[in-house]
Amino acid sequence: MTALPANRRILLVSRPVGIPQPGDFAIDEAVQEPIHDGQFRIRNLFLSVDPAQRGWANEGSNYAPAVPLGSVMRALAVGRVVETAHADFPVGSHVYGWLGWQHYAVATPADILSQFTAPAAPLSCYAGILGINGLTAHLALNGIGRPRAGDTVLVSTAAGAVGSVVGQLARAQGCEVVGLTGDDDKARLCQARFGYHRADNYKTGTIDTVLDAAVPDGVDVFFDSVGGEILDATLRRMRTGGRIVQCGTASIATWNPAPVGLRNEREVLTRRLSWGGFVIFDHVAEFSGAIAELAAALRSGALAYDEDIRAGLDRAPEALVDLYAGRNRGKVLISLD
Amino acid sequence: MTALPANRRILLVSRPVGIPQPGDFAIDEAVQEPIHDGQFRIRNLFLSVDPAQRGWANEGSNYAPAVPLGSVMRALAVGRVVETAHADFPVGSHVYGWLGWQHYAVATPADILSQFTAPAAPLSCYAGILGINGLTAHLALNGIGRPRAGDTVLVSTAAGAVGSVVGQLARAQGCEVVGLTGDDDKARLCQARFGYHRADNYKTGTIDTVLDAAVPDGVDVFFDSVGGEILDATLRRMRTGGRIVQCGTASIATWNPAPVGLRNEREVLTRRLSWGGFVIFDHVAEFSGAIAELAAALRSGALAYDEDIRAGLDRAPEALVDLYAGRNRGKVLISLD
Repeated sequence: MTALPANRRILLVSRPVGIPQPGDFAIDEAVQEPIHDGQFRIRNLFLSVDPAQRGWANEGSNYAPAVPLGSVMRALAVGRVVETAHADFPVGSHVYGWLGWQHYAVATPADILSQFTAPAAPLSCYAGILGINGLTAHLALNGIGRPRAGDTVLVSTAAGAVGSVVGQLARAQGCEVVGLTGDDDKARLCQARFGYHRADNYKTGTIDTVLDAAVPDGVDVFFDSVGGEILDATLRRMRTGGRIVQCGTASIATWNPAPVGLRNEREVLTRRLSWGGFVIFDHVAEFSGAIAELAAALRSGALAYDEDIRAGLDRAPEALVDLYAGRNRGKVLISLD
Repeated sequence: MTALPANRRILLVSRPVGIPQPGDFAIDEAVQEPIHDGQFRIRNLFLSVDPAQRGWANEGSNYAPAVPLGSVMRALAVGRVVETAHADFPVGSHVYGWLGWQHYAVATPADILSQFTAPAAPLSCYAGILGINGLTAHLALNGIGRPRAGDTVLVSTAAGAVGSVVGQLARAQGCEVVGLTGDDDKARLCQARFGYHRADNYKTGTIDTVLDAAVPDGVDVFFDSVGGEILDATLRRMRTGGRIVQCGTASIATWNPAPVGLRNEREVLTRRLSWGGFVIFDHVAEFSGAIAELAAALRSGALAYDEDIRAGLDRAPEALVDLYAGRNRGKVLISLD
């Protein structure tokens, strides 16, 4: 085979507390090793930048082990198989999975979340709306939120890669959909583009005044990715029998030391709530059906989807900082030439 | 008709903060009024003394409105129909429902939770293990807890009127059942009589040391009636996909001012928990089937059940205080001659 170029990679070199900063990462170039039986080599095309990466970089138990210092930053990506020693992953097929912030990855089937030989949408979509973002929206909303026509559905991070899909899916199911975002432009975008009947910048008042105006009659389904005070305030506005989908806790900068807040068990009890945690990687068996549904909606124009694609591996750390600061307009991806 | 005797009643006369005290109640005797079409008069036989009565007596929204000052203390009871103007409730039939801490009640069908013409167990059982206590155990454990053989089930207030049934039902379903109680005698009783493989007096150490010993491998189902620190500590020991049944919050003396505690949304998320609130009165449609199952188990000897029956209406307020202090051995009832 032809000699492979060096593999440019982004390594995690220091352990951040809270949001990772560019200085926590370093770029290197590594010699590529031969692949073994059962492996295949992938040329990455679109690297995903995700809120969950903070948890993977931080110390301490999470729903995934911490990225070891000195190793490639864990990330999802879409790429093309360029060399193979596995019959199910032929050269030229495309995959989405744990490929890391790097140009090339050597993978086994355990690293792959989905595979597509005949893409039904632009390749970048498979790292976003047809990747964990859209899949989380679809499977968490329907699996835990169980919206019914007429329900009021409140979505935190309403304009985000997940929230923007939740809004549209809930609207299509006949719900009254209300979003919370961190700036006015995103609030407008939610209503103009992502199916929300109403969206509010929660920074324009106290959480209580914003929610009093946004959901005066309460909430049936809360799709929450932030936790913290927004969660506490919404719990106190849930209707009897309401469902809370806990998909993230982005508003909590650090869990060490353990933060305190209002006790919530009385709300769970007296409102007869059902509060469930959702981690997309538990649901890989449901992916192909959900991807087919989402891809059909995307092709038909029923689902709007925005991407914020930045070119070049070295822009990934800054893109992650921007994501936490809300300086993005749609799903953040890094494209590699 | 024969002149009816005066109705002896216990009135709520002051609004307690926290646990009601005997001084919050007064006894009176009221003249009984004629019944109207659709009503029926009941002679109460067994009055129930329940932890939930604190919430009904306290100010503030709960899952039931507060008992108005000067009116009969809200309570469940079993009684016999002694006069009727409703074809479905003939004289001599027995009912269980919202009959109050009093000798006589005038009721309509809306006040009745269950009716039984041919009792399948002693009448007092219909106010306990065949009433909301046993029904809560059965319907909450199976509806929200969904235990599977081999699961570790932890029960707070393990020796209580609900917990003592939960232990036995979970054991019968092949679970490893662990209880928490507030004294050593009750811990022994849980193991000797209520199906628990292990039971601990949580006051013998810190919550953490007790749970470290009691559930070293974590918890699949937490049947919780106390909330507070025991809940927080157990949340941090839940296994992935665990279920929390919130049936009460007895450890929290008052919700005004709002108490604070550890933030728990990260546990819900990362452990993929399902945390549900259960209020038995939502499930009246399921009662008759569940009563039949529980009565069959009781008759066959498969379910052990203890009663702490105290004679005389005027002992009810003190019995409620004793219940919160743990000075009871089984379901607390007041029998009326």
